[in-house]
Amino acid sequence: MANLMNNDVFLAFSTYATIVILKMMFMAPLTAYFRITRKAFSNWEDTAMGKKEPEERKKMLQTNPDVERVRRCHQNDIENIVPFVVIGLLYAFTGPDLSTALLHFRVFVGSRFIHTVSYVLALPQPSRGLSWVVGMITTFSMAYRVLTTALLL
Amino acid sequence: MANLMNNDVFLAFSTYATIVILKMMFMAPLTAYFRITRKAFSNWEDTAMGKKEPEERKKMLQTNPDVERVRRCHQNDIENIVPFVVIGLLYAFTGPDLSTALLHFRVFVGSRFIHTVSYVLALPQPSRGLSWVVGMITTFSMAYRVLTTALLL
Amino acid sequence: MANLMNNDVFLAFSTYATIVILKMMFMAPLTAYFRITRKAFSNWEDTAMGKKEPEERKKMLQTNPDVERVRRCHQNDIENIVPFVVIGLLYAFTGPDLSTALLHFRVFVGSRFIHTVSYVLALPQPSRGLSWVVGMITTFSMAYRVLTTALLL
Repeated sequence: MANLMNNDVFLAFSTYATIVILKMMFMAPLTAYFRITRKAFSNWEDTAMGKKEPEERKKMLQTNPDVERVRRCHQNDIENIVPFVVIGLLYAFTGPDLSTALLHFRVFVGSRFIHTVSYVLALPQPSRGLSWVVGMITTFSMAYRVLTTALLL
Repeated sequence: MANLMNNDVFLAFSTYATIVILKMMFMAPLTAYFRITRKAFSNWEDTAMGKKEPEERKKMLQTNPDVERVRRCHQNDIENIVPFVVIGLLYAFTGPDLSTALLHFRVFVGSRFIHTVSYVLALPQPSRGLSWVVGMITTFSMAYRVLTTALLL
Repeated sequence: MANLMNNDVFLAFSTYATIVILKMMFMAPLTAYFRITRKAFSNWEDTAMGKKEPEERKKMLQTNPDVERVRRCHQNDIENIVPFVVIGLLYAFTGPDLSTALLHFRVFVGSRFIHTVSYVLALPQPSRGLSWVVGMITTFSMAYRVLTTALLL
């Protein structure tokens, strides 16, 4: 156990994986914030805060563009951050140089923060598209090292 | 390899992570059950069971509130259980006390079972909201230990 | 660190987990391909390629059956491949025979490739349903070994 925590690449992976997972988790309270301020809920039981007429509550069961935007951003995080975490962990076990590993982790995590800002603020393309591609390429690069180092089919 | 399996915190993590992932997987057959009993499918090829007129099959390509509820519960599992598994694994490597680790794992897994029951049965709030927050806090607490123990930026 | 990379079951897991995660990631460019060829986008800023009238851009904010099909396939990957990766990693640590482990990894990864082809090409059931069930059973079988080997509640 102590061995892993004495390994710098594993420490760096733990740090960046935790940061980017926390960023992903942050999308949930952000969705809740937009649901409450835009009064746009999916579940009948969520519309009961305060004293309200049934008619008023029914109107709150709606979709809202701001809520849907944050939810798409959250979904994109899941589709990209989960592969990074899995392949990044296996990559850390292949014993790369610390500087090379740090480069991968920093570029990926940075790209995902830029992606989130681009998505939530609806910045003009290709800001969001480019940050998404950079993250994908970083993960592919680590996957390439895993497959060339550890291949056993 | 044997080292990890001699470590009680890692054994406890393996047990609780497996249980909560199995709980998450259970949402898929539950969705299938509601799709079949409510006759609400997303794919044309799924409506072919039994001999049916094309008109009848077209009606089965609909959304149903019960199906959508289970799907939202499944999605919420993905958004919360995946972060728990990633951060919980890294947390296990930081060498916490077994009793502290067990407390985290038990509270998280318990909160997710309560969350599922609250969601699927549409129990009044704040039952679902509270169980969701408890799970989030448990994961944050483990992330805090990972970042304070393993920080390498 | 080197210990893990000298373990054949862990090498095999690394290989198959990376392959199946790359397959999952492939769904994203496939979605982008269908969005562009079908002119069906979710975000206003994505409709700006080329010189276009606002009216024309508004029409591109639509859902398309082909896009939605690929997205459902991607979502099903997340719901099934993430549990495989988590439980497969823990399973590798229980020290199974290499041949037994390889059987599990190969059957799972094979079933997911068949699932994707069945889904995207809309092959008649039960091709998609069966490949999904085979993947689930493989993951359950590994979860059973984890729980019987590593149980610590």
